[in-house]
Amino acid sequence: MPGNSFGKLFRITTFGESHGGAVGVVIDGVPPRQAIDLDVVQQWLDRRRPGQGKLVSRRDEADRVECLSGLQDGMTLGTPVCLIVRNQDARPGDYESLRDVYRPSHADYTTEAKFGIRAASGGGRASARETIGRVAAAAVASQIFGRLVPGVEVIAWVDSVHQLRANVDPMTVTTKSVDQNEVRCPDAMAAKSMAQAIEAARADGDSVGGVIGCVVRGLPAGLGDPVFDKLEADLAKALMSLPATKGFEVGSGFGGTRMKGSEHNDAFVSGGFDGRGGAGPTASNRSGGIQGGISNGAAVTMRLAFKPVASIGKSQHTVTKDKKPVVLSGVPGRHDPCVLPRAVPMVESMVWLVLIDHYLLNIALQSAPAGV
Amino acid sequence: MPGNSFGKLFRITTFGESHGGAVGVVIDGVPPRQAIDLDVVQQWLDRRRPGQGKLVSRRDEADRVECLSGLQDGMTLGTPVCLIVRNQDARPGDYESLRDVYRPSHADYTTEAKFGIRAASGGGRASARETIGRVAAAAVASQIFGRLVPGVEVIAWVDSVHQLRANVDPMTVTTKSVDQNEVRCPDAMAAKSMAQAIEAARADGDSVGGVIGCVVRGLPAGLGDPVFDKLEADLAKALMSLPATKGFEVGSGFGGTRMKGSEHNDAFVSGGFDGRGGAGPTASNRSGGIQGGISNGAAVTMRLAFKPVASIGKSQHTVTKDKKPVVLSGVPGRHDPCVLPRAVPMVESMVWLVLIDHYLLNIALQSAPAGV
Amino acid sequence: MPGNSFGKLFRITTFGESHGGAVGVVIDGVPPRQAIDLDVVQQWLDRRRPGQGKLVSRRDEADRVECLSGLQDGMTLGTPVCLIVRNQDARPGDYESLRDVYRPSHADYTTEAKFGIRAASGGGRASARETIGRVAAAAVASQIFGRLVPGVEVIAWVDSVHQLRANVDPMTVTTKSVDQNEVRCPDAMAAKSMAQAIEAARADGDSVGGVIGCVVRGLPAGLGDPVFDKLEADLAKALMSLPATKGFEVGSGFGGTRMKGSEHNDAFVSGGFDGRGGAGPTASNRSGGIQGGISNGAAVTMRLAFKPVASIGKSQHTVTKDKKPVVLSGVPGRHDPCVLPRAVPMVESMVWLVLIDHYLLNIALQSAPAGV
Amino acid sequence: MPGNSFGKLFRITTFGESHGGAVGVVIDGVPPRQAIDLDVVQQWLDRRRPGQGKLVSRRDEADRVECLSGLQDGMTLGTPVCLIVRNQDARPGDYESLRDVYRPSHADYTTEAKFGIRAASGGGRASARETIGRVAAAAVASQIFGRLVPGVEVIAWVDSVHQLRANVDPMTVTTKSVDQNEVRCPDAMAAKSMAQAIEAARADGDSVGGVIGCVVRGLPAGLGDPVFDKLEADLAKALMSLPATKGFEVGSGFGGTRMKGSEHNDAFVSGGFDGRGGAGPTASNRSGGIQGGISNGAAVTMRLAFKPVASIGKSQHTVTKDKKPVVLSGVPGRHDPCVLPRAVPMVESMVWLVLIDHYLLNIALQSAPAGV
Repeated sequence: MPGNSFGKLFRITTFGESHGGAVGVVIDGVPPRQAIDLDVVQQWLDRRRPGQGKLVSRRDEADRVECLSGLQDGMTLGTPVCLIVRNQDARPGDYESLRDVYRPSHADYTTEAKFGIRAASGGGRASARETIGRVAAAAVASQIFGRLVPGVEVIAWVDSVHQLRANVDPMTVTTKSVDQNEVRCPDAMAAKSMAQAIEAARADGDSVGGVIGCVVRGLPAGLGDPVFDKLEADLAKALMSLPATKGFEVGSGFGGTRMKGSEHNDAFVSGGFDGRGGAGPTASNRSGGIQGGISNGAAVTMRLAFKPVASIGKSQHTVTKDKKPVVLSGVPGRHDPCVLPRAVPMVESMVWLVLIDHYLLNIALQSAPAGV
Repeated sequence: MPGNSFGKLFRITTFGESHGGAVGVVIDGVPPRQAIDLDVVQQWLDRRRPGQGKLVSRRDEADRVECLSGLQDGMTLGTPVCLIVRNQDARPGDYESLRDVYRPSHADYTTEAKFGIRAASGGGRASARETIGRVAAAAVASQIFGRLVPGVEVIAWVDSVHQLRANVDPMTVTTKSVDQNEVRCPDAMAAKSMAQAIEAARADGDSVGGVIGCVVRGLPAGLGDPVFDKLEADLAKALMSLPATKGFEVGSGFGGTRMKGSEHNDAFVSGGFDGRGGAGPTASNRSGGIQGGISNGAAVTMRLAFKPVASIGKSQHTVTKDKKPVVLSGVPGRHDPCVLPRAVPMVESMVWLVLIDHYLLNIALQSAPAGV
Repeated sequence: MPGNSFGKLFRITTFGESHGGAVGVVIDGVPPRQAIDLDVVQQWLDRRRPGQGKLVSRRDEADRVECLSGLQDGMTLGTPVCLIVRNQDARPGDYESLRDVYRPSHADYTTEAKFGIRAASGGGRASARETIGRVAAAAVASQIFGRLVPGVEVIAWVDSVHQLRANVDPMTVTTKSVDQNEVRCPDAMAAKSMAQAIEAARADGDSVGGVIGCVVRGLPAGLGDPVFDKLEADLAKALMSLPATKGFEVGSGFGGTRMKGSEHNDAFVSGGFDGRGGAGPTASNRSGGIQGGISNGAAVTMRLAFKPVASIGKSQHTVTKDKKPVVLSGVPGRHDPCVLPRAVPMVESMVWLVLIDHYLLNIALQSAPAGV
Repeated sequence: MPGNSFGKLFRITTFGESHGGAVGVVIDGVPPRQAIDLDVVQQWLDRRRPGQGKLVSRRDEADRVECLSGLQDGMTLGTPVCLIVRNQDARPGDYESLRDVYRPSHADYTTEAKFGIRAASGGGRASARETIGRVAAAAVASQIFGRLVPGVEVIAWVDSVHQLRANVDPMTVTTKSVDQNEVRCPDAMAAKSMAQAIEAARADGDSVGGVIGCVVRGLPAGLGDPVFDKLEADLAKALMSLPATKGFEVGSGFGGTRMKGSEHNDAFVSGGFDGRGGAGPTASNRSGGIQGGISNGAAVTMRLAFKPVASIGKSQHTVTKDKKPVVLSGVPGRHDPCVLPRAVPMVESMVWLVLIDHYLLNIALQSAPAGV
């Protein structure tokens, strides 16, 4: 019930401060007898890890995952899987000067407002480092879900950076095309411009935001719920729980509000009801693969807005804990000028976690044979 | 755990099909000894009720609320409050012709995909009529929350309809200004154009969507959680669980992705840390009153995208349950050409429910005196 | 999360005060396309209803169940099922004299200690009338579970009253033999003595308690969980949540503590691993059908202690709300001198609710094919 | 929602197999700014640890607790506290011979029936080693709860072993008197006989069970809930979730069923309503400190039945995985002939976890000022 768990049947609880002993996750509700490759988990963590290139944070963490429980010879026991990553490269000293200052648009002040205390260094739980547990859990989830629903794909990409928008087709985008450049934008031309914009921001002691696009292909119809746990509602919560997010769209999104019903409605067509092809049962897909809160077998399409990173090198006005004005001459620590490339695996991870949970719920609900 | 409940400590469960015996809600976790005015509950229901004017659905339901439990002489007992509204004006006959046809962009097909069965008439749980329970619960919540946090305000308004966008200042908008016209748009000029656009859509057998804006003023700092239950994540889920929603923004939203960090960051200023004024502790408010998932005392600002209503009078291509192509010559039943005006109280309701829940969670968490 | 819900996947929420407008239940998580006979629900309610004979409470409630949602032509829609029973025979006047007095061993004082308010008449939520919702929900659950696990039986009986203990064989007891007398004790001889003891208590203005026995036969192996949600732990909670309960035993119970391991252990035998026969895979059954928190296919055997009813006709010492001593000359209202006969269906109901929930959880958990 | 978590607001999730990498717990919902002494946690773990004397298991585990998160300089941050203990002395080889045999009255068969797989050595999650996480969490809970409710005491003791029953007064028993001997029975005379009985069982390759008594003194009135989450129901679940338990009693327990109402009722007296003295507001305490599911300020008294340990040295009949009969000539591994002494801290731990959770829930519920 407190706020560090996510999911109902495939339920994860993350723990760990960015500069504490370790960060990690406990996954409860893992189906038994599932082969889990920890190398895949490590690859997912490597993909979200800082220090991968010049565009992202320079913090160098090996981020080696260790499995404390739940696996035996690479096979799940049906018991909780605990995965941890030790914090090795924390430099609390970097944060000494910030102990009594509220960094603008950071969680410093609000953390104190809620808890009356905050981690002396780093962002504590508000750090993007918290997402290690989410990504590790999703790397487990995806291996299982891929067996339950062969062929299902979750692919996210950088869709825009600052003013630059890519041209990406959700029906054909591949992970390979996403990972072909450091920006994780499958539109190579746009990626180049984006990389320049990010570098320019870094050089200027500034930061940029952007939009992540995400598609789920091959999802069966029937996932989601008609009322509170609509699939889009759970996706919205999952994705808006990632740090620095400011907006979420599914299907036609805000653009759809400027259409008429006769333009927006998706006509059903005779084919595509098998739910696996990706094309789905409709001629168009402004619904984004979800109707009435439930997947319809078409591709689920989403967009997620990330604000520009709050940690910048430029001088800023702010106040101390005593509410005295002060000029902060550049936020210390090693930070990304653009969080988008690293956010790609985080977005995919949260989507996997939503999908497996709804899938398991469905199985339980649909188990009873129709009966008189 | 199933999908018809919302909230942790102030927990509601809604029930009822649109054309069944009744719709309603059970609220568990209601603090005791709270005076609740059922007339206020009725007023909230009247506000979301169809048949209020020419712009909205012509279905005429008295929608009289009945309280089955939890209140004694207008005072809460701390026991579950059950509120129901009988369905009186259902005309299942209207839907006979639809029994074997999937209405485009409706929940007909997906409901069958998930449940293998659906209500023979009306939208079942996918109907906007389900929101009666939410609004009734929120009318209770707001009366209690207003006592816990005097002066807190939740105000939603129609911010755009189709291509028309209003000019509304979240810091000064009032419920009175919202309710001054049928469109529930406080910008009188825009409201007039919007009304014309809605009428034109009706005349044309078409429908229009739009955007609802919403602001919370007077909220204390400290509500929300740093990880999964970020305040914006719970608001996103709450609002994206309303029918016909396609997008959610908080603070700067998607527009914020086109700014640089140095432009987007909200500088802290010396005043405004008392959390009650609405202005908040920052010179600007691109954060939308939430930082690191936790309220900072500034106004919480949101926008919610609604697609154009799927039920239209125009002819549409679709398929039967047997996947045979068919032309649907106008969706029968009485429907809104624009759901926005009636959605205003639904949006406010979901926000109240999120706020009271986080507030009660905070009280429990913060109860222990700091101790050594 | 508040205390009026039970179950995870088949989740019920009860509501209603004993002397308010209605009592009832909302069931969320009901599998769709299940034929539900409301006459069966009514029969279950009739079985727990007061006014059935001279041994139990003389309150005469028709207790007619009304279904507000979730059923269409007797078939579940997969949406919440709301069942209510109007309160018709409440005589609040009976309780006027008790408004300012704490009845001994009742919930009057503790209700005020927790809520600061209590229902002016009747027991509010502490009344046995609250169990109407549980029984109605279980009548639905049993119809579904019987289809999921054909042949499963849950049978409770009065095993002792005051000093009198019956001789009942859990492997052969039938509902018919339980219901053959008013005491609901399948040992006819003992039943006769029990009836006399109950009548004597009534004549004396006193009350008696006793023990309910309960057996589940035909349950498959594999239900339950190794840690917190052990099957016996969930049964203990379910049954100890019934009013007036003071103790719970499974299998050998307290008597088993006086045996040695070599006497207590249940030897596995070659047959009985199919989980449906009732005999189970062990030569003896001191485990009570549960080992390590998980059912083993043998009969699950339980015993539940009920204290003598607190409402008695004799004079008692107590205090007023002002903590002034007072003599209470007989508790007004119509009350059972012995709650045991009516508790039989309540016990069975709670067991059904535990079983269906664990069964549905298992289905979800076990759905994933073993995979490499 | 899966079965490895306990509690609503103070919510723990345990993980770890007995012979895996580590066992541990994540506590979510820890109030912030609470000084936590890890030495106290270690002392609690030492108290439940095997290898403390000749009466208990000879497995020698240092069981050193390590804190991975949630604490900073000994102060809680309000973030999840993760505590782990590495498994150091596991000797999987001891269990080789058991891989294909179902030990009688163990969880071997049922674990396979549910999960289709089980840990190759040790009891996996069914091992008493799982309780390390519970005890560690409770050691944290008790430090906080002691600050919220100064003077509250939870004391458990060995009340009977096999046929031997101690004479212990719940109102005066102290932890010191409990710990004065290895049996943890405060009745020194009985303890001596019990120690002999345990030794005799060991010498004979057999085992003995018994009963743990437990009292909570100084608990305020008002904890618990009138319906499903009755305090006794949650205590029953908590305690019946400990390995090897077969029965639970509160207050008068099964003995109370043999009394009349006029004998059993607890007369309220003028004093004792302050809820802190332990004597409570009633002249007698057959209610066991709980009425209508809610604490009344008197001492909460419980008894918990433990079966004799299933692992014995004597030969036993059982079957292999292939259901072939086999004689098991003594269960390998190091095991307690009597689990009772080590169960004392486990019982206390589960009680602390129930109490703090209900206390925090109450605070949230009671926060709203009575209002008109």
